Amino acid sequence: MANDRKLVREITPMDEDFAQWYTDIVKKAELIDYSSVRGCVIMRPYAYAIWEAIQKNLDQRFKETGHENVAMPLFIPESLLQKEKDHVEGFAPEVAWVTHGGNEKLEERLCVRPTSETLFCEHYAKIVKSWRDLPKLYNQWCSVVRWEKTTRPFLRSREFWWQEGHTVHATEEEARAETLQMLHIYADFAENVLAIPVIRGRKTDKEKFAGALETYTIEAMMHDGKALQSGTSHYFGDGFAKAFNMQYSDKNNKLAYVHQTSWGMSTRTIGGIIMTHGDDEGMVLPPRIAPIQLVIVPIAAHKGGVLEKASEIAEMLKKEGIRLKLDASEQSAGWKFAEYEMKGVPLRLEIGPKDIENGQCVLVDRPDREKTVVPIGELSAKVPELLQKIQDKMFRKAKDNLDSHIYKAKTLDEMKELALSRPGFVKAMWCGSLACELAVKEETGMPSRCIPFEQEHIDDVCPVCGQKAKHMVVWGIAY
Amino acid sequence: MANDRKLVREITPMDEDFAQWYTDIVKKAELIDYSSVRGCVIMRPYAYAIWEAIQKNLDQRFKETGHENVAMPLFIPESLLQKEKDHVEGFAPEVAWVTHGGNEKLEERLCVRPTSETLFCEHYAKIVKSWRDLPKLYNQWCSVVRWEKTTRPFLRSREFWWQEGHTVHATEEEARAETLQMLHIYADFAENVLAIPVIRGRKTDKEKFAGALETYTIEAMMHDGKALQSGTSHYFGDGFAKAFNMQYSDKNNKLAYVHQTSWGMSTRTIGGIIMTHGDDEGMVLPPRIAPIQLVIVPIAAHKGGVLEKASEIAEMLKKEGIRLKLDASEQSAGWKFAEYEMKGVPLRLEIGPKDIENGQCVLVDRPDREKTVVPIGELSAKVPELLQKIQDKMFRKAKDNLDSHIYKAKTLDEMKELALSRPGFVKAMWCGSLACELAVKEETGMPSRCIPFEQEHIDDVCPVCGQKAKHMVVWGIAY
Repeated sequence: MANDRKLVREITPMDEDFAQWYTDIVKKAELIDYSSVRGCVIMRPYAYAIWEAIQKNLDQRFKETGHENVAMPLFIPESLLQKEKDHVEGFAPEVAWVTHGGNEKLEERLCVRPTSETLFCEHYAKIVKSWRDLPKLYNQWCSVVRWEKTTRPFLRSREFWWQEGHTVHATEEEARAETLQMLHIYADFAENVLAIPVIRGRKTDKEKFAGALETYTIEAMMHDGKALQSGTSHYFGDGFAKAFNMQYSDKNNKLAYVHQTSWGMSTRTIGGIIMTHGDDEGMVLPPRIAPIQLVIVPIAAHKGGVLEKASEIAEMLKKEGIRLKLDASEQSAGWKFAEYEMKGVPLRLEIGPKDIENGQCVLVDRPDREKTVVPIGELSAKVPELLQKIQDKMFRKAKDNLDSHIYKAKTLDEMKELALSRPGFVKAMWCGSLACELAVKEETGMPSRCIPFEQEHIDDVCPVCGQKAKHMVVWGIAY
Repeated sequence: MANDRKLVREITPMDEDFAQWYTDIVKKAELIDYSSVRGCVIMRPYAYAIWEAIQKNLDQRFKETGHENVAMPLFIPESLLQKEKDHVEGFAPEVAWVTHGGNEKLEERLCVRPTSETLFCEHYAKIVKSWRDLPKLYNQWCSVVRWEKTTRPFLRSREFWWQEGHTVHATEEEARAETLQMLHIYADFAENVLAIPVIRGRKTDKEKFAGALETYTIEAMMHDGKALQSGTSHYFGDGFAKAFNMQYSDKNNKLAYVHQTSWGMSTRTIGGIIMTHGDDEGMVLPPRIAPIQLVIVPIAAHKGGVLEKASEIAEMLKKEGIRLKLDASEQSAGWKFAEYEMKGVPLRLEIGPKDIENGQCVLVDRPDREKTVVPIGELSAKVPELLQKIQDKMFRKAKDNLDSHIYKAKTLDEMKELALSRPGFVKAMWCGSLACELAVKEETGMPSRCIPFEQEHIDDVCPVCGQKAKHMVVWGIAY
């Protein structure tokens, strides 16, 4: 039985086939099930618990910075979507259209929201009248739909869950500050909660969001060297304001347009957690986001006193605020080890008759299977300490991976060579022209990731055209 | 300015036009804005904050009883919706249909979920194999779409937000126990958190959910005597199990069908709060669900020391866990009084220079404007005590309203007379036949609300046909 189960749960080694390894984890850790609508997935309880933890942490950060949650409709009338030219061009080709309500054909078809800028704009145009009404700092948690051709669980699906913040401000300065504030919140969340190091930067014009003046991004590196765009924050200027007539009376009683932002983070971060921290045994979850931080596995549980002691320890650690599970099921200890390793539980506590005799138990960490023997009386102090240690070392390991897979290049040939030979990102200078950006993509297969805030001087000139370089850009293949 | 604002906020008196009173509150307390899709609304920050408080409380109850959250897709393929005959008949006429994805016509059209039984069934059929996999106790928080002809904010809209629980069990007994457990959780939540007294009972066959064997309900009475169905819990038997082939191997290794339930509570409860507790000044929110439990209004705030003292009190009460707002804006005290009365904030704290001299402040409760002068040093104890008192008296008042508007009738003429002359519910006996139920509805305009768990003996016979009575039924016009 134990062996059967083990077999069922075996996953493809990462080095053999990274894509299959990912799909195996997603299915076998019971994160996702496929639905009968192609490209639409079911988030199973364990995935949803991770998403709830993400929501709770981010939502608190949003509220602390003055944001309020709202709920906008699911549907956008076609005419509303079309109000801002760049925006509709970006999204119209990939939306789902509702044409009938009940048995009746609708007079105007409705798209299922791919993002809600247009809905927020319409609402703000109605409710913002005076400078006293500004800023409006709204956010919503919902799912959105984009009719993608190729889909992968968490990373790209036809329906995905996210939050989308939409704010309007009296001045450009305020709106720009908001855009950056939210990017830094995402970056801090990624690094300090998800233990995923990120590069913060600005997207090139080519890569920015449909309708935005500027798009800021945090870019993470997955275990295979590919990038995952993990959160974006957009500054719109007054483009939408003009298209939607979002005007207010300023302090001098003159009409002025609002300045606008939007920002979003989605369930794709769960894919990012898997591909940043996972290994051949399954997921590895950072303790700060893990639905179960500690699993207690009783050894020789049938022997007198073992379960009692395990329950006693569970109660004690729950009081310390540890999210834990005591697995007293009939499965073998070996099966349980594999199961919770697959699910990425950061810390395992083993306790058996001998341990009880010695007044101790064994703690095993998930990332390295490092064992620590701990006296039972010291658990309350030691478990939080070990969880912190795991959190820190997961970040350091991911940071090392990122740092050791970014390469500098001075010529297009060097860029090509790196793109072909080594997974990872390439840093190079750029003159700022679309032509050179397209040339790099064409020649190396790598689109630009971003113009990092932390600039370095690699060379004086653009490696494509030889003209004066304006920025250092990070390039890389992305999910 | 203050007067202008006041005028804008005036609402139609309840006795003059209850429907208009309701609509005025919904708009002027800034709960809802209309979107450009008819029947689809925007939940504004204050409404959403109430919904978040409802979610938090219910979600905790669900988790304490072993339920797990998931996220199902938004779309149901037409063929999947059609698998259970009664279910599709109930819902197909009122769903929104997606026919195109991007520029392509879909091979099969998809409906936007009106409820998700079919999706859960399809998933359970895949993941439930053995008795070890049972029960599955899932819930999801989402919005659903029903293409209603006539809509009213919160009460009936084309899109609304809710939770839907869907569970499968090994035995009928377990599933029936779950159905009732969830109904009682709803009832307890309504009474003890929302301060809305409810009648618990079972729906007649005519009124039950499409596809259910039994539907249980909690029915509340609004201020105008009409009913609001406030939460339902359904027992499905193995009807869907057979349609979707949800079978598992039991302990004897034989295939058996699962037994199933579903249960839901929605944003219409916000409408219920308004129509149960509201008055001519606006909403009255029960303290346990109020996003703001206490508003602090400084009097003569420009005078030295007033704002400082108000802030000091705010900090002190926040530490006690009171959800409060200190409104230090430039609006007049009178404007603020009206504003927070409109928004139903249960308790107001007024503090001015004289109060500070006397080391006290004035607390005013929202339901009766009862004033209590409280020494500042006693606020930490007194505020929670007053909030509790408000919670209790709101429930008692609503309970008195319910009790005094339920009338007993022995004949159809009495029922008609009551329906015509007095707003409220009518209790009468019933033989159990559909013909008599239809006759009552036809003659009195009242559909059956439910067969209450607490039965009374009013008569021996059915008032319509004179045959032996089986049940006492509560009848009433509903939202």
